[in-house]
Amino acid sequence: MTRISALDVIDVRFPTSRWLDGSDAMNPEPDYSAAYAVLRLDDCDVTGRSLLFTTGRGNEVACAALRALAPYLIGRDAASAVADIGAIARELTWDGQLRWLGPEKGIMHMAIGTVVNALWDLRCRFDDVPLWRLLSSMEPEELVRQIDFAYIDDVLTPDDALAILEAQAGGRATRVAALEADGLRAYTTSAGWLGYDDEKVARLARAAVDDGFTMIKLKVGSDVASDVRRLKVARDAVGPHVRIALDANQRWGVREAIEWMGQLVPFDPYWIEEPTSPDDVLGHATIRAAIRPVNVATGEHVQNRVIFKQLLQAEAIDVVQIDACRVGGVNENLAILLLAAKFGIPVCPHAGGVGLCEMVQHLAMFDFVAVSGTTADRWVEYVDHLHEHFVDPVVVTDGRYRAPVRAGAGAAMLDASIEQYRFPEGPAWRNVGTDRER
Amino acid sequence: MTRISALDVIDVRFPTSRWLDGSDAMNPEPDYSAAYAVLRLDDCDVTGRSLLFTTGRGNEVACAALRALAPYLIGRDAASAVADIGAIARELTWDGQLRWLGPEKGIMHMAIGTVVNALWDLRCRFDDVPLWRLLSSMEPEELVRQIDFAYIDDVLTPDDALAILEAQAGGRATRVAALEADGLRAYTTSAGWLGYDDEKVARLARAAVDDGFTMIKLKVGSDVASDVRRLKVARDAVGPHVRIALDANQRWGVREAIEWMGQLVPFDPYWIEEPTSPDDVLGHATIRAAIRPVNVATGEHVQNRVIFKQLLQAEAIDVVQIDACRVGGVNENLAILLLAAKFGIPVCPHAGGVGLCEMVQHLAMFDFVAVSGTTADRWVEYVDHLHEHFVDPVVVTDGRYRAPVRAGAGAAMLDASIEQYRFPEGPAWRNVGTDRER
Repeated sequence: MTRISALDVIDVRFPTSRWLDGSDAMNPEPDYSAAYAVLRLDDCDVTGRSLLFTTGRGNEVACAALRALAPYLIGRDAASAVADIGAIARELTWDGQLRWLGPEKGIMHMAIGTVVNALWDLRCRFDDVPLWRLLSSMEPEELVRQIDFAYIDDVLTPDDALAILEAQAGGRATRVAALEADGLRAYTTSAGWLGYDDEKVARLARAAVDDGFTMIKLKVGSDVASDVRRLKVARDAVGPHVRIALDANQRWGVREAIEWMGQLVPFDPYWIEEPTSPDDVLGHATIRAAIRPVNVATGEHVQNRVIFKQLLQAEAIDVVQIDACRVGGVNENLAILLLAAKFGIPVCPHAGGVGLCEMVQHLAMFDFVAVSGTTADRWVEYVDHLHEHFVDPVVVTDGRYRAPVRAGAGAAMLDASIEQYRFPEGPAWRNVGTDRER
Repeated sequence: MTRISALDVIDVRFPTSRWLDGSDAMNPEPDYSAAYAVLRLDDCDVTGRSLLFTTGRGNEVACAALRALAPYLIGRDAASAVADIGAIARELTWDGQLRWLGPEKGIMHMAIGTVVNALWDLRCRFDDVPLWRLLSSMEPEELVRQIDFAYIDDVLTPDDALAILEAQAGGRATRVAALEADGLRAYTTSAGWLGYDDEKVARLARAAVDDGFTMIKLKVGSDVASDVRRLKVARDAVGPHVRIALDANQRWGVREAIEWMGQLVPFDPYWIEEPTSPDDVLGHATIRAAIRPVNVATGEHVQNRVIFKQLLQAEAIDVVQIDACRVGGVNENLAILLLAAKFGIPVCPHAGGVGLCEMVQHLAMFDFVAVSGTTADRWVEYVDHLHEHFVDPVVVTDGRYRAPVRAGAGAAMLDASIEQYRFPEGPAWRNVGTDRER
């Protein structure tokens, strides 16, 4: 019997704030960071790896949350653990003491999601298969068993979920072949960071179209006149047929969102993302009703399936943006994919940061193969940053994510990168310290 | 100039799980704990103290979150800091990097609330006044400046808040006098923990009535037959005129809550508290519509003002239960009190745990004096546990909280208790270790 012997936790931070990559109205200078988790086994070298993405300060708190979960995992039989990850996800989520710290939200929930994702990575390595293919090969009944239906069964019952999955089961093989041939459509945010000047926005927007992207995204919300100008620059650069999504990163109140968007509608934005607090279900519904036909999208900060359920119930959003690291891991994201399918709302995953593209592509591909069964109105976010630090970096060509072929769930980082960017002792941070002292 | 020189953080835990005090359907064996924070000054012995309540495991993560905030506070001029706590609350809440960890929810938000509360404690000590009296003496304009109206100004504007406060300003002196004479009505949860047998429930319920309480609360949600039996025991013990509130601690889904409550309604419960997830605004609205005239209450796990706003907008609750430690401190609780007043919904604070009674009584008293102006339909929760560890323990006599007279915001603990219950090195925990080994 092989047992889980350790949960190593490493604070890894990239000094991205030096270049204003990733700058938006809410995050003027992020240092993309990862609370990196490695599940180790007592008698073999296989590891289960995942990460909790943060934007810098506080990454050590995420590390503390991960360490708090080690006693729940160490000593377990590894084969049993990966055979029923849903049971472990429920055990951690409903722990009578840890639960006070959320419940099911914030750092503790993200940490639970991270160890759940590390267990999926471990299972993928045992089975020598990428996560999207593992999930796409699981029977509908086994997938349903992964899901905690607490607080969503008024809208999605296990029988509902089973029916959705069974309806798509027959077409899985065809869609797997399509995925292997064509991948999934991506959109790029690399052109539109707030910190970039107009010339850079125009140049990068044109480059994105040349690279095959059919949608780009601009950050907005800092200054309305600037947003109008930048959106016009981008629209002129890409022409009328490329979609331009906007992202306000929660910058507005409900009234402000409606007024601000009124000035941007003439440039035909495809969606407005995070127009207000991710917690404000009713606010999103009000905004959506006021700015139709512009779509409303949110999700990267939506804390759990319960808020997604309500966003769908209230007809508050047109696009569900799952995130690989925000909720309780693969298992809760399965629930969210099925909720979206129940309501017929497309899922366009959030990515970027560090490792989010590598991780979330698997969920998007599984969604296509086994849940939604379609690529209509669907794109996966792509940001061309920091992929060089991953063992199996995303492959995006001609504006499309290509299906991963290597085993794992995507988050495994290169040892050399971890050593270079460990915080605060890695060489990358020692140099920053020296620069600041000069 | 006096500067903030340190933020000491101490992990303090009480082994309450040994007695099943505090047991409910979601927390079968809590160890009431505090991530305890002490703001120290460079040239005087005055300190600002507060605590982040948890139920045991993970308290070290709360401590890590508090430590992450130290760099934002150390070096500030103390007088300037306490003169504009609202500015510091906003700065911490909107920090571009920390915000990813919530936003405004979970451990990071609770930690921000804790340092905000410690600053209020410090201001109280500078002014030699208890918090309720400090707040009750502040001009309406100054109180409004404490509040972050982001994401609530579609429902409550600064002008709305000012109007509510000004309408009650003239009666403040009369109500302060009433408070000093009569205190505020309490209800007790001490009789109704799930771990207690029927005889103990009956005995404690009768004792509560003898002690002057006009309302008691029972925990429910573990087993419906047991709940029916315990509620009957309690109703027989207290007679028809004492109110009995019920608390399900989020145990149910929406449909389950409605079905379960159907069996308890014959015993005339006054409210059902936390019938489902605190995140499920629409679920609470559905439950409330189905079980009228039983009131629906929630709040101890409601993460921030945005969820409270929606609970009120959706007519989902009859009772707002603020908690001293869940949200972003005194400042966000001011916003929640004003939202409740705007909608005409009574505030009945959550308390218990360790220190929550000592802290939240100040907010309830301020609400009476300066916001709602009434005691109608209002009770403050009281649990008779662990008060002996506080410098200024609550005084509850004849079923009423008596107005604190000593300076501070309530959370200061005795040095001897901190030393005894420090985790894991305090003597109380060393003994537990020995007991378990026997």
